[in-house]
Amino acid sequence: MEKVTIKELFKNSEKYYGSQIQIQGWIRTLRDSKNFGFIEVNDGSYFKNVQVVFENNLDNFDDICKYTISTSITVEGEFVKTEGAKQSFEIKASKVEAFNIADSSYPLQKKHQTMEYMRTIAHLRPRTNTFSAVFRVRSVVAFLIHRYFQERGYVYLTSPIITCADCEGSAEMFNLTKLDLDNLPLKDGKVDYSQDLFGKKTFITGTGQLHGETFAHAFGKIYTFGPTLRTENSNTKTHANEFWMIEPEIAFCDLEDLMDLEEDFLKYIVKNILEMCPEELEFFDKFIENGLIEKLKKVTTSKFTRLDHKEAIDILKKADREWEFKPEYGEDLAKEHEKYITEYFNGPVFVKNWPKDIKAFYMKLNEDGKTVAAVDLEVPGAGEIMGGSQREENYDKIVKRMEEMNIDREELYWYLELRKYGSTIHSGFGLGFERLLMYLTGMENIRDVIPFPRTPNNCNF
Amino acid sequence: MEKVTIKELFKNSEKYYGSQIQIQGWIRTLRDSKNFGFIEVNDGSYFKNVQVVFENNLDNFDDICKYTISTSITVEGEFVKTEGAKQSFEIKASKVEAFNIADSSYPLQKKHQTMEYMRTIAHLRPRTNTFSAVFRVRSVVAFLIHRYFQERGYVYLTSPIITCADCEGSAEMFNLTKLDLDNLPLKDGKVDYSQDLFGKKTFITGTGQLHGETFAHAFGKIYTFGPTLRTENSNTKTHANEFWMIEPEIAFCDLEDLMDLEEDFLKYIVKNILEMCPEELEFFDKFIENGLIEKLKKVTTSKFTRLDHKEAIDILKKADREWEFKPEYGEDLAKEHEKYITEYFNGPVFVKNWPKDIKAFYMKLNEDGKTVAAVDLEVPGAGEIMGGSQREENYDKIVKRMEEMNIDREELYWYLELRKYGSTIHSGFGLGFERLLMYLTGMENIRDVIPFPRTPNNCNF
Repeated sequence: MEKVTIKELFKNSEKYYGSQIQIQGWIRTLRDSKNFGFIEVNDGSYFKNVQVVFENNLDNFDDICKYTISTSITVEGEFVKTEGAKQSFEIKASKVEAFNIADSSYPLQKKHQTMEYMRTIAHLRPRTNTFSAVFRVRSVVAFLIHRYFQERGYVYLTSPIITCADCEGSAEMFNLTKLDLDNLPLKDGKVDYSQDLFGKKTFITGTGQLHGETFAHAFGKIYTFGPTLRTENSNTKTHANEFWMIEPEIAFCDLEDLMDLEEDFLKYIVKNILEMCPEELEFFDKFIENGLIEKLKKVTTSKFTRLDHKEAIDILKKADREWEFKPEYGEDLAKEHEKYITEYFNGPVFVKNWPKDIKAFYMKLNEDGKTVAAVDLEVPGAGEIMGGSQREENYDKIVKRMEEMNIDREELYWYLELRKYGSTIHSGFGLGFERLLMYLTGMENIRDVIPFPRTPNNCNF
Repeated sequence: MEKVTIKELFKNSEKYYGSQIQIQGWIRTLRDSKNFGFIEVNDGSYFKNVQVVFENNLDNFDDICKYTISTSITVEGEFVKTEGAKQSFEIKASKVEAFNIADSSYPLQKKHQTMEYMRTIAHLRPRTNTFSAVFRVRSVVAFLIHRYFQERGYVYLTSPIITCADCEGSAEMFNLTKLDLDNLPLKDGKVDYSQDLFGKKTFITGTGQLHGETFAHAFGKIYTFGPTLRTENSNTKTHANEFWMIEPEIAFCDLEDLMDLEEDFLKYIVKNILEMCPEELEFFDKFIENGLIEKLKKVTTSKFTRLDHKEAIDILKKADREWEFKPEYGEDLAKEHEKYITEYFNGPVFVKNWPKDIKAFYMKLNEDGKTVAAVDLEVPGAGEIMGGSQREENYDKIVKRMEEMNIDREELYWYLELRKYGSTIHSGFGLGFERLLMYLTGMENIRDVIPFPRTPNNCNF
């Protein structure tokens, strides 16, 4: 007897009508009456369940009726077409056998549960509709990201996460050590890192960009995609201490080219996820964010607005409304500003050429001497999802910026050497994977798009 | 004028003959005479270079002749067919312009350099033939791994790397903390982790398997693919403190199914890398491991041997040779044993059903009460590259094993609950990404298949 997945039954129903098949999965619901019963079975292969009908001609009919939610079962029977039912097919069981009858303490019984509660059972929540959809979309989007870059000749770089230096400063980095914290070796009253595994103080890095630039100068186009840790002690809906980031870096690419890439990339992801996960997106549209699908479809056809930071501030200052944070030319955009700008243009907006004083040392100084060739992409509903820049490719200029900003040049000698040995106009951006997922699914809390989220005071599972 | 990549010129030469094109890349070699010169240009898109011919009709002919190795340039000109030359085409330049003339201190001049030296310039070595090939293959294999699993309905799980517990024990895990190691807060003479970011002691995990099992019980088939850190203080050719791992986990899958999967997976990777990176593999075959391609081709068609650990020891004991480590029934296989076994069978060998005392608590206890359903895949030339097992799915039995092995059950309550709420026969394996790469490229040191390797006392770049 052929073992098939539920996905296969949905995708190729015609092929299986009238066949004897076997499925293996878990009970989502079970209803029984005196002579027959229905089981909704899910095997994880597909968002939807298949319905199994069993009758009292089965030897273990009474046992089956007692099977609990989440019991693991093997079902054999005929795959039949049904008329006028919610689903157009079902399995008429000749055998229903439990492998492990779920304990009745199983917390995901039929009733509605809050997102907060779900986080306390992160090991079980992917068995629910919402999280089954979220984490399947997460998986497919991850693949689409790889596919996008690979098909376009980018080389995937797994940048190191252990580091001794970091361009973003060590304030946000975790310390990493093999030393026993309760018995630290000391030298002159300070920790003696020469006894640690790497012989010096090490951290987990918050970015792969600098290493990305080295590879971009060998392969032309590269991307990273890996976990990032930050120590930020902030309990918001959009911050987690462990998240994944995508950081492409491209040689012979200026800020305009970079915006072209970002726009093309985002449209590709949105277009393909609409095609590849229609059931999941319909579910989100119905239960999580009304209008989600329309919002996403619109992105795929709209031209993204491009404007200078200064122009954005002009618009904000002219707006006839009160601000919690007053918009200023020399300053960052607040969440409320991002929201206003995307609503003003009714679509995604690139805000570019930012004041140099609020940006990183490696960003290309513009000719005005005041702004840098940085760009943030703001999207309706999610605010900033990508931040990028053209990099300063001139050795003397970048050294000057590092001096101004008190950044240690010695540790980064290798990074500076890229400017000596065949430097190029080059650019890159960073995309928070979870921010993108929140945008694509409508989920409002980053904790609900990460399988096992780590946030301040929360490192369970 | 159309900007094209060198890859495009090689793949679709016919399309470009006679066209005016532009390329941007770096000088690999430059030879000049009085009236003309040749430049080998590489743009990172392809393993091979394209040849550019420039003549003294160019205004800056004398300048071009002085361009150094690794100078970044823009070339414009006609793409022409050549007769009888090494390459069947070249670019007849109408313009050659440097963007940044590489400093003459550039360390990768033409002469041969050792692998050891290359590690000291990890930011530049991807510009050489060897490392260009290695890291392009690394990128393509990473994608193939994703493609293999995604096409077969596996869900990609990004398992957390910050953890409080670990099934492998904390001895090999790095400590992770936001606390200032020079000013640790104390309570009763011990570090007061309640003041750390997560409010307790945290580590970087060495495996995603346990989390993988939770997702396998929701999605049926899942895989992880991410970085793994281990504190092992060993300076061998096959150990690094940061490496990448792939860990698939499959519900309703026993040990035989798992071996089928491993065999199919490895054959898929080998077959596709041969097709997708022929230039790189030819290079490795010629300069790194003679016979590599033949070795790989053979794997795609051979049937992998499957034998019990006991049978393997029988063979080793009967072998007419001296051992550094005497083979014993209750013990692990040494490198020399692995080598002998793969040579004995002249191909990949699954060694299964290992003595329980040398294996992890979560492995399924066989009916003999002495062995567990674990399997290692040994391949010629690389030894063990995959290690997997059927997992103990019985609640009482796994609890008993944890008691015997003194493993804290409280921390892992969520893992144990998988055995209460719809447990399944399930299995999974772990594959060290770098071990696989060494096997595929013939590179002999793990430091040379990792972009920026981290090993004891070495955390540069």
